[in-house]
Amino acid sequence: MPWQPGDRIESAEDYLASLRGRNLRIYLFGELVDEPLDHPLIRPSINAMAATYQLAADEPELATAFSSITGGPVNRFLHITESVEDVVAQNRMQRRLGQLTGTCFQRCVGMDALNALFSITFDCDQRHGSTYHQRLGDFLEMVQSLNLVLGGAMTDVKGDRSKGPSQQTDPDLFVRVVERQDEGLVIRGAKAHQTGCVNSHWFIVMPTMRMTEQDREYAVVCAVPVEADGITYVYGRQSCDTRSLEGGDLDSGNALFSGQEAMIILDDVFVPWEHVFLDGEYEFAGPLVERFTAYHRRSYVCKAGVGDVLIGAAALAADYNGIAGASHVADKLVEMVHLNETIYGTGIAASHESHQTAAGNFENDGLLANVCKLNVTRYPYEIGRLAQDLTGGLVATLPSEADFRSSEVGPLLEKYLRGTDGAPTEDRLRVWHGWSRT
Amino acid sequence: MPWQPGDRIESAEDYLASLRGRNLRIYLFGELVDEPLDHPLIRPSINAMAATYQLAADEPELATAFSSITGGPVNRFLHITESVEDVVAQNRMQRRLGQLTGTCFQRCVGMDALNALFSITFDCDQRHGSTYHQRLGDFLEMVQSLNLVLGGAMTDVKGDRSKGPSQQTDPDLFVRVVERQDEGLVIRGAKAHQTGCVNSHWFIVMPTMRMTEQDREYAVVCAVPVEADGITYVYGRQSCDTRSLEGGDLDSGNALFSGQEAMIILDDVFVPWEHVFLDGEYEFAGPLVERFTAYHRRSYVCKAGVGDVLIGAAALAADYNGIAGASHVADKLVEMVHLNETIYGTGIAASHESHQTAAGNFENDGLLANVCKLNVTRYPYEIGRLAQDLTGGLVATLPSEADFRSSEVGPLLEKYLRGTDGAPTEDRLRVWHGWSRT
Amino acid sequence: MPWQPGDRIESAEDYLASLRGRNLRIYLFGELVDEPLDHPLIRPSINAMAATYQLAADEPELATAFSSITGGPVNRFLHITESVEDVVAQNRMQRRLGQLTGTCFQRCVGMDALNALFSITFDCDQRHGSTYHQRLGDFLEMVQSLNLVLGGAMTDVKGDRSKGPSQQTDPDLFVRVVERQDEGLVIRGAKAHQTGCVNSHWFIVMPTMRMTEQDREYAVVCAVPVEADGITYVYGRQSCDTRSLEGGDLDSGNALFSGQEAMIILDDVFVPWEHVFLDGEYEFAGPLVERFTAYHRRSYVCKAGVGDVLIGAAALAADYNGIAGASHVADKLVEMVHLNETIYGTGIAASHESHQTAAGNFENDGLLANVCKLNVTRYPYEIGRLAQDLTGGLVATLPSEADFRSSEVGPLLEKYLRGTDGAPTEDRLRVWHGWSRT
Amino acid sequence: MPWQPGDRIESAEDYLASLRGRNLRIYLFGELVDEPLDHPLIRPSINAMAATYQLAADEPELATAFSSITGGPVNRFLHITESVEDVVAQNRMQRRLGQLTGTCFQRCVGMDALNALFSITFDCDQRHGSTYHQRLGDFLEMVQSLNLVLGGAMTDVKGDRSKGPSQQTDPDLFVRVVERQDEGLVIRGAKAHQTGCVNSHWFIVMPTMRMTEQDREYAVVCAVPVEADGITYVYGRQSCDTRSLEGGDLDSGNALFSGQEAMIILDDVFVPWEHVFLDGEYEFAGPLVERFTAYHRRSYVCKAGVGDVLIGAAALAADYNGIAGASHVADKLVEMVHLNETIYGTGIAASHESHQTAAGNFENDGLLANVCKLNVTRYPYEIGRLAQDLTGGLVATLPSEADFRSSEVGPLLEKYLRGTDGAPTEDRLRVWHGWSRT
Repeated sequence: MPWQPGDRIESAEDYLASLRGRNLRIYLFGELVDEPLDHPLIRPSINAMAATYQLAADEPELATAFSSITGGPVNRFLHITESVEDVVAQNRMQRRLGQLTGTCFQRCVGMDALNALFSITFDCDQRHGSTYHQRLGDFLEMVQSLNLVLGGAMTDVKGDRSKGPSQQTDPDLFVRVVERQDEGLVIRGAKAHQTGCVNSHWFIVMPTMRMTEQDREYAVVCAVPVEADGITYVYGRQSCDTRSLEGGDLDSGNALFSGQEAMIILDDVFVPWEHVFLDGEYEFAGPLVERFTAYHRRSYVCKAGVGDVLIGAAALAADYNGIAGASHVADKLVEMVHLNETIYGTGIAASHESHQTAAGNFENDGLLANVCKLNVTRYPYEIGRLAQDLTGGLVATLPSEADFRSSEVGPLLEKYLRGTDGAPTEDRLRVWHGWSRT
Repeated sequence: MPWQPGDRIESAEDYLASLRGRNLRIYLFGELVDEPLDHPLIRPSINAMAATYQLAADEPELATAFSSITGGPVNRFLHITESVEDVVAQNRMQRRLGQLTGTCFQRCVGMDALNALFSITFDCDQRHGSTYHQRLGDFLEMVQSLNLVLGGAMTDVKGDRSKGPSQQTDPDLFVRVVERQDEGLVIRGAKAHQTGCVNSHWFIVMPTMRMTEQDREYAVVCAVPVEADGITYVYGRQSCDTRSLEGGDLDSGNALFSGQEAMIILDDVFVPWEHVFLDGEYEFAGPLVERFTAYHRRSYVCKAGVGDVLIGAAALAADYNGIAGASHVADKLVEMVHLNETIYGTGIAASHESHQTAAGNFENDGLLANVCKLNVTRYPYEIGRLAQDLTGGLVATLPSEADFRSSEVGPLLEKYLRGTDGAPTEDRLRVWHGWSRT
Repeated sequence: MPWQPGDRIESAEDYLASLRGRNLRIYLFGELVDEPLDHPLIRPSINAMAATYQLAADEPELATAFSSITGGPVNRFLHITESVEDVVAQNRMQRRLGQLTGTCFQRCVGMDALNALFSITFDCDQRHGSTYHQRLGDFLEMVQSLNLVLGGAMTDVKGDRSKGPSQQTDPDLFVRVVERQDEGLVIRGAKAHQTGCVNSHWFIVMPTMRMTEQDREYAVVCAVPVEADGITYVYGRQSCDTRSLEGGDLDSGNALFSGQEAMIILDDVFVPWEHVFLDGEYEFAGPLVERFTAYHRRSYVCKAGVGDVLIGAAALAADYNGIAGASHVADKLVEMVHLNETIYGTGIAASHESHQTAAGNFENDGLLANVCKLNVTRYPYEIGRLAQDLTGGLVATLPSEADFRSSEVGPLLEKYLRGTDGAPTEDRLRVWHGWSRT
Repeated sequence: MPWQPGDRIESAEDYLASLRGRNLRIYLFGELVDEPLDHPLIRPSINAMAATYQLAADEPELATAFSSITGGPVNRFLHITESVEDVVAQNRMQRRLGQLTGTCFQRCVGMDALNALFSITFDCDQRHGSTYHQRLGDFLEMVQSLNLVLGGAMTDVKGDRSKGPSQQTDPDLFVRVVERQDEGLVIRGAKAHQTGCVNSHWFIVMPTMRMTEQDREYAVVCAVPVEADGITYVYGRQSCDTRSLEGGDLDSGNALFSGQEAMIILDDVFVPWEHVFLDGEYEFAGPLVERFTAYHRRSYVCKAGVGDVLIGAAALAADYNGIAGASHVADKLVEMVHLNETIYGTGIAASHESHQTAAGNFENDGLLANVCKLNVTRYPYEIGRLAQDLTGGLVATLPSEADFRSSEVGPLLEKYLRGTDGAPTEDRLRVWHGWSRT
């Protein structure tokens, strides 16, 4: 029996079904998207998210965990860490998904936001006597039970970056509370480039930086259903994004999977109190950002998984070129592995060095997570440079798939683009094109 | 009076006229291109080449030289260097064109090939009693008089790179002489990713590597008209290439200019003897490649001109973000300038350290040119990384121009993507989008 | 009661006592060293080793472990790892000792050799029915009970590095068995730059590389007492080594502590069978080297401890210069921390990712350990460069302590070398001079 | 006939003679130096300076120039640049001397100071109607005629670096005018780590930074004889400096040549007006520093000459190790050459891009000179790291020369430190030890 609204999502197929017919207001190329699931440019990003469900089925020890909240197994992306090993296991899962999708699978932001919020709400309640932690617990039980995708919405558009939220000429350049009602509050503003938001069921709105007393109305955390009234999504462009619209699967490189970034515009969205997890306690904005980034900056070990794909592709390309045995090839591959494992090593070290919070969950080391982040902002560029060195100029100037499939010019390309004997020319092109979208 | 075939090209407009109606066999996306001049994806690359004519008009001291061959001024790209300052002036012109176009203007290969060939033909004649040098002189007089674009065609497709030309399973994987006739010879093979070939009037076929006696049939140098019988061009894809087909000018980044790389397939092309400049003297293949690369590896100072555009854009983006005064911004800009000037410095040093050849023209220092080349393969990646650091994530995830122009979602983007007061949002987007195609 | 030969070493003082009067044959500057303990150039290296005993007393949870072999606490440097946390704890101890001594404390080689040998002897016995593992256990019980320092002796002098042990013109260029007797075997050869050997009680002789059947006589592992007959030590020079002979404590930089490297020349040294742990099983030479280097390459996290000292010194020097608040200073310190923690992170990640061997002890991840090693060969240079940038030229050109102490020129230096008001000039010099020997 | 005071210095021998018996007040290790020429620690630095005279004799086209001031040939280090080629020739001479001495030959500061001052005095006279330019011309004629060594004295000790000269608690922390008399002025203060000052005949005192009206008394430029009354020199220490005192020539590495840095303390030194070239015109302090550093920052191409020595030594060491043919060795040597030539290329590019000043001499490009300087602060560390990678650990831990010469332990070292057959062990040690003092 197919998945119905309200059912627990049991599989990748259920997940796909759960996205259909939500009537989201998504703009792309100046037009409303009818059904994202059927849009060739959006679909690869949904496939990548679906891989997080598939892995839970295929390798449950990697992608699920036992939750004390529901008393049963839950997808690890929804799990509140109950041990150091739980934090480490996130990293192992992330690297594997990086290898499987070769791109961003978009579900880490929610995982990291939930775990940061778990201890922040606890600490806030201790200080202010609020009841945010219990509210969050109830919300968690619901999303774990239904196995939903939870996104995060943190990065405000920020306007003039030399000014704080309350100093901007337009007060809406950071998300803020514009009204408080009996049943809840109303928020307005925009969050830039939100990973996987269109593919989520809920997202958590969070402040983007340390705040002062003047910024009180900006210190708001809440959960919002993706299909809530008042939300507009504007889909972000990515390099070579329209290649997925061309048909074929060579030129699009990573044809099956992609990431997703969209702007979320919140035009007076109502949030009932039970989904509000911070409201004006501005002094917790900074710690929330810190704890979230502590988790998130070692979540970038996913890029080591993507790096594995790139390194493998570079090695295969060298093989097709007949130079796999050359010493400079081995040197470059070793260097690529070294850089890639340095990213992974610093990230997983941060996780291994976790400590328990007052709220009881486990949080990784913040310094090492920042080190991982700095490595992620540097080494993939160098790995990419070495990969291009290894494979040669054709990666950047290949003829189109349509030319290769053409009955007129195709045979000429088949003849002239061959590598070593026995290596199918199409396979060689496929490896080279892999660069387009990783 | 408009330019007519056979007229000297006097201006950028003449150049554009000279390209029309040539009936080249060019494949792009599996179809024959009707008229490249009118093709929105190809036209920006023609504009970039046209800039080399425009600069000769606007700044003749930079982009023209006095030629002893014609006894008058010629475009510097066609000039045989008669002094050290001539070699240096090439670099100054290249950096300026990099700044003006922000991309590859495609005319250096021919310039470097002519100068390398000038001394090689002289040396070969000395050894073998051949008359290549005089033939080349006659050819030069013609192209200088008519002010034509001359391309180079060096990089063979190479097949299995562990094997030499004559060892490949398919003997055509390096361009070779397949027949000799009374009037000339016939060549077959393919040259990969040839810069600006479709925008040229002639190109020089050259061997791609050192050769042995077994490779004698592959040691061929000759000039071929772009519209010669038997040639098929397959246009290479570049990142974000189809954005120029979308209309608008925001998303395409560098909307006016682009580079061009195409594969040239030579299917038994006849070349008369007067255009043959080497035929079987295999021992000159290596020296020709060496001299060409000596010139060409310091021609990459054009990338310092492109770097100037990027550095300026990054500084402007920081300004629009309101962070121009932050110390980390200044540090990053200084580092970008340092890397960019290191590319330029090592290149122009190579030119300043030129020596006169036996043939009488001037050739730059080869070691420093190689140093320049190594810097070019490293620093632009680092400059790009720093630029992205400076401008932030939106560069990579901006909504489309169509969304920005939309009457529905456009006003929301106008509101939320503003930076400092007074900075037009569209200008800010334009700077950010500049990354797409540089 | 003072320590007597045969007593267990209970303290750093006992350790110092245990070294006295051993009559080792040590050459330094062409002369025999009378008593290393009293030699001002050697003593700082003994102090560094003594710190490993002191830490066991001061922070037992860090520097001791419970040994199943003796059934009691042992110094962690002698401990066979019984859990993942045991492996991780080695790294924590190493970083702390790096901070405390600012140099190499020399006791890791033995620790890593013992743990590698523990599983190798087990595997060899499984294959060959030998009894090496039990012999090693007996030896371990002895060194743990007496709390001795165990060194390693691996790096052969190697001669012509393009040739293997048995191919050298002089067969002694790798340590080999020259005779087998009823009671034991006799070895000859030399081990280059052996860390802390003169400060040890025993050392383990091990092969330095993978071996073939022809190298059978070179595949020998055994334990040798430092004072055994036939051994000559030649003390290695280090940069600025004689500053410790000058008196004073400013110019010598790290005046209290230093590392130690000496050459061990084995001139037909007899080893009884109970101390032989491999003899001719050449196929285990490679695995032994691999397992030892797996342990040892993440032991280099000690350098992160030394880095902590350097970073702190650089920050203090900037403070004395009055520029602690400058943004470029903060940027450089952050970069130094980043590089230093990358070393630590990749090392401790290797330890956290340990697995159990067939023999039952725990061994860290080899790939991440190699990554740590590569980082150690790169980043300390960069950290040092940044530190020198921060502190300025005087670090490299300071007048001597004797000038500073001089009644004639001293007051002038006191006047002219002052920094910020209130910072004692001597303290400033001391920080600057810290570079001399770290 | 030997050189007599007042004679022109015609040779390196004359130069050595000119230094003898000057009764300078030099402190080293807390004691007055009797005769620097005979001091084994100082002598190598004198030898390096003497090499500038020797090169003028051996290769006059490189190290001499025709001076319009004297109407005859002068040592290039004293020459006012009269053409672009003059500026470039400085760089060629500097690289050669770097190769010949393997260290700092100390004569560039004076050369760069004279050329900067030549245009500054001209500009100042134009503004203020002063007569500094003529004074400088007279002084130049004298030093050129006698062929003297001219040093520079720029770097003040600076105290609290967050404060300017006039804001320091002790007003003497920057050199200043303390009195003006009929015949001249009196200066007080100290200049830190002045290159080659003890080996000079005169030095030019210059301000160290941009100055304001409050710093008027600090804006002083003048020429001072090295033996003037009131000067104390305190000799700076360098790494491994005392090895030259040990006898032998192996351990001292670069046994013949070294650099020199000393502190100059000016205790009320009188300077007659004819040697004063700026006095209170504070607005020229900044431009003087800028022009001096423009010249000086590309003078660092000498380090490319030192790099040549290091690269050659590393290649030779690899050869002695029997691994000259290994691909990783070639890769590292290529990388070292690349980095070294990048230093040279950016420096000589700055010189080639010189322009004529209003005063008529030629000044190099300032931006490229700064680029050269940044490369010099980075690449030698990386070149050194690669060299050490190539040669192995023994470089850092070699036994002493005394051990090698010892009749007891020497033969053992001879046996065990040999490399490839036929490579003398002593030569191998000599190459390895070359690191000690380059």
